[in-house]
Amino acid sequence: MNVTIINIGDELLIGQVVNTNASTMARMLTEAGMEVGKTVVVGDSRDDIWQAVDVAMHASDTVLVTGGLGPTKDDITKKLLCEYFGSELVESEVALENVKRLFAVRGFELTPVNRAQALVPKCCEVLNNDVGTAPCMWFQVESGKWKEEREATQDGLPHTVLVSLPGVPHEMEWLMANRVIPKLQETFQTETIINKNILTQGIGESFLSDLIEPWELALPKCIRLAYLPVAGMTKLRLTCRITPDNPETPDIPELLQGLYKIAGQYIVGEDCETLAELVHKTLSERGLTLATAESCTGGTIASQLTAQAGASAYFKGGVVAYSNEVKECALGVHHSTLEAHGAVSEETAREMAEGVRKRLGADLAIATTGIAGPDGGTKEKPVGTVWIAVADATHTEAQLLSFPGRRRQQNIDRTVNQAFSMLMKLVVK
Amino acid sequence: MNVTIINIGDELLIGQVVNTNASTMARMLTEAGMEVGKTVVVGDSRDDIWQAVDVAMHASDTVLVTGGLGPTKDDITKKLLCEYFGSELVESEVALENVKRLFAVRGFELTPVNRAQALVPKCCEVLNNDVGTAPCMWFQVESGKWKEEREATQDGLPHTVLVSLPGVPHEMEWLMANRVIPKLQETFQTETIINKNILTQGIGESFLSDLIEPWELALPKCIRLAYLPVAGMTKLRLTCRITPDNPETPDIPELLQGLYKIAGQYIVGEDCETLAELVHKTLSERGLTLATAESCTGGTIASQLTAQAGASAYFKGGVVAYSNEVKECALGVHHSTLEAHGAVSEETAREMAEGVRKRLGADLAIATTGIAGPDGGTKEKPVGTVWIAVADATHTEAQLLSFPGRRRQQNIDRTVNQAFSMLMKLVVK
Repeated sequence: MNVTIINIGDELLIGQVVNTNASTMARMLTEAGMEVGKTVVVGDSRDDIWQAVDVAMHASDTVLVTGGLGPTKDDITKKLLCEYFGSELVESEVALENVKRLFAVRGFELTPVNRAQALVPKCCEVLNNDVGTAPCMWFQVESGKWKEEREATQDGLPHTVLVSLPGVPHEMEWLMANRVIPKLQETFQTETIINKNILTQGIGESFLSDLIEPWELALPKCIRLAYLPVAGMTKLRLTCRITPDNPETPDIPELLQGLYKIAGQYIVGEDCETLAELVHKTLSERGLTLATAESCTGGTIASQLTAQAGASAYFKGGVVAYSNEVKECALGVHHSTLEAHGAVSEETAREMAEGVRKRLGADLAIATTGIAGPDGGTKEKPVGTVWIAVADATHTEAQLLSFPGRRRQQNIDRTVNQAFSMLMKLVVK
Repeated sequence: MNVTIINIGDELLIGQVVNTNASTMARMLTEAGMEVGKTVVVGDSRDDIWQAVDVAMHASDTVLVTGGLGPTKDDITKKLLCEYFGSELVESEVALENVKRLFAVRGFELTPVNRAQALVPKCCEVLNNDVGTAPCMWFQVESGKWKEEREATQDGLPHTVLVSLPGVPHEMEWLMANRVIPKLQETFQTETIINKNILTQGIGESFLSDLIEPWELALPKCIRLAYLPVAGMTKLRLTCRITPDNPETPDIPELLQGLYKIAGQYIVGEDCETLAELVHKTLSERGLTLATAESCTGGTIASQLTAQAGASAYFKGGVVAYSNEVKECALGVHHSTLEAHGAVSEETAREMAEGVRKRLGADLAIATTGIAGPDGGTKEKPVGTVWIAVADATHTEAQLLSFPGRRRQQNIDRTVNQAFSMLMKLVVK
């Protein structure tokens, strides 16, 4: 069961929008035991879409297409698919009812442009889109160009499925979860894929690779190991495929024991995609509360934690102390500390962490202060100089980081990950 | 000048990592007047990479490949390209010096695994990677499989260029800016592409499309219009291509006057990718300072502003007031207000905005409080209920939002955009 994802949109090809749809769809398919072989992005151009669809129809069991279904003039996917499958556009009762319902809910008048959203190729099956007006269309037919080719080649290809989804991320996601994946699981026999993540920090990718080489070479054949360096940490991913031909599941906990023996000191946690997720899980489980005092990370630590449902169970809140006045008035950093050591200093980081912990009444605190760049450095404190402090009721630990680069977002992201690692060490010590 | 981007990595195909490389590269190429026709993602599989490279070499003027250049076993790009171009691996002096230099800077011992990073196909030109140990390789040769095919077809194809870059985002970005784009501009004659963004809020995509249809139909042929709905706002993008065949530049300011006449009330700003960028630009230019008090947005407003270099010029700081205690102790929200109206109420939002503005000594303030979901709603205040307040020295404006969905990130992102729009209205009123 091999899937090709095609995402359509000029905005993706000029880099205005990051293609999160591809990764969201890939993650959902992977979790459902389906393998994505390729993802392709093309613009709102008839020839490019046609060619991408045609190549994918010959190379995959399933083709998922997003985008180009809106009511505006740059949206051409529907007409093109209609032609590709040799069909004609007809008004779908299901789709029209859906459009009417959504407009009634919003209290809007139905315009001809919106009514046209209910037009679909006659040969497709409409999968109802409860959360939007664009139709989701399932094609599993032998007609038009596709049928002629199939007849000409007689190559016994499986019935390739093509599904066209809207490109609006939340509509796509709802449709994948509620319509497309269940129907794909019914249609194809899917294999089981097990992914296992191990988060490491404090060792570069190549050193880690050298260190664990004997362990890696001894892994069973059905397991693949990947190294994913992300903002200062390296995530190891084990992918294990259980197929009807290779039905045996290897003993992953036992395999991991071997890894811990060699590299345990660098392992921060397991089974999470990010360190924010690991902190979220750990603090929720242990019933510990947290407060944050962020200068150079500017709210990124707080936003990564609160992006996760249930953060209110442990996250009291935080202060984004961007100016020195705020460090004094909202966190209680001493004026004399700032005068004597500067905002980017161990002393300030410690007072920020201790101050926010006490003022917000939390068990734990994280504080960051530094120069994220690209400008603002001095000779003594160049861009990339960052102090992090973590505190509990009895201890405050501080650490100096010196990032070599001037890239603001990179320095922020690395600081956030290092801060989460330090907090984890404080918590599990 | 048509570019295909190929990003290699299993982590992209299982959805663990969002492919930001494709959008970063596309943005940089577009700004340099080069057109991306297609982007493709394939896994760390020999056959898939080979096929994607081969298809792209026949369809594009330039093929940019990222990924699979690290020192670990899942990295196979270099060997594959060596074979594709019929070359052999040799140790590059330039690349070896670079690896040695970077290891010396970091104070690490050079291992055999790292030394192997200096091996490159003999037929390529190494573009020096100042910021990492993986080599950047420029192929513009007629040899191996590629040469045989070119000789067989005699179709006078231009000399297709292939460049292999590391997949680590900051290395890729540095190489694109400092090595690849300058060399592509030397090699090809590039056309000029003008993009113009207009940010709108308060009108859905289809209504906007209906409203501006007469204007859209009258646009010159060299201009394409796209609708990009993002978290509650719709960005309009005009793309204008100036080529040697069509060298005339349309009068874009005059065209926009027509748009303002029809839809001016919905236009929040121009020439920015995001509302955060518009706020950043406007407050910097006007010398106004800002403080934030965030509950349901959890620091996202602060982090979007501070992600931009120079935010300290106007951003004083903020409070992430996740718990009621923090709303009281750090923002001065009255206990009686929280008792009488609850945390998610107009009164609380107003007191949060006014409190943070005064306490942090800013000209302006934004406050958010709501139920982002997926859980935590009540009958009176269901998930998606959000209050936003914006304040200056004399006015406080508050607005109730009722998002229909339960998706946490979506509700957060829409709240952030609505808050930025309200602030812009307060500032430019």
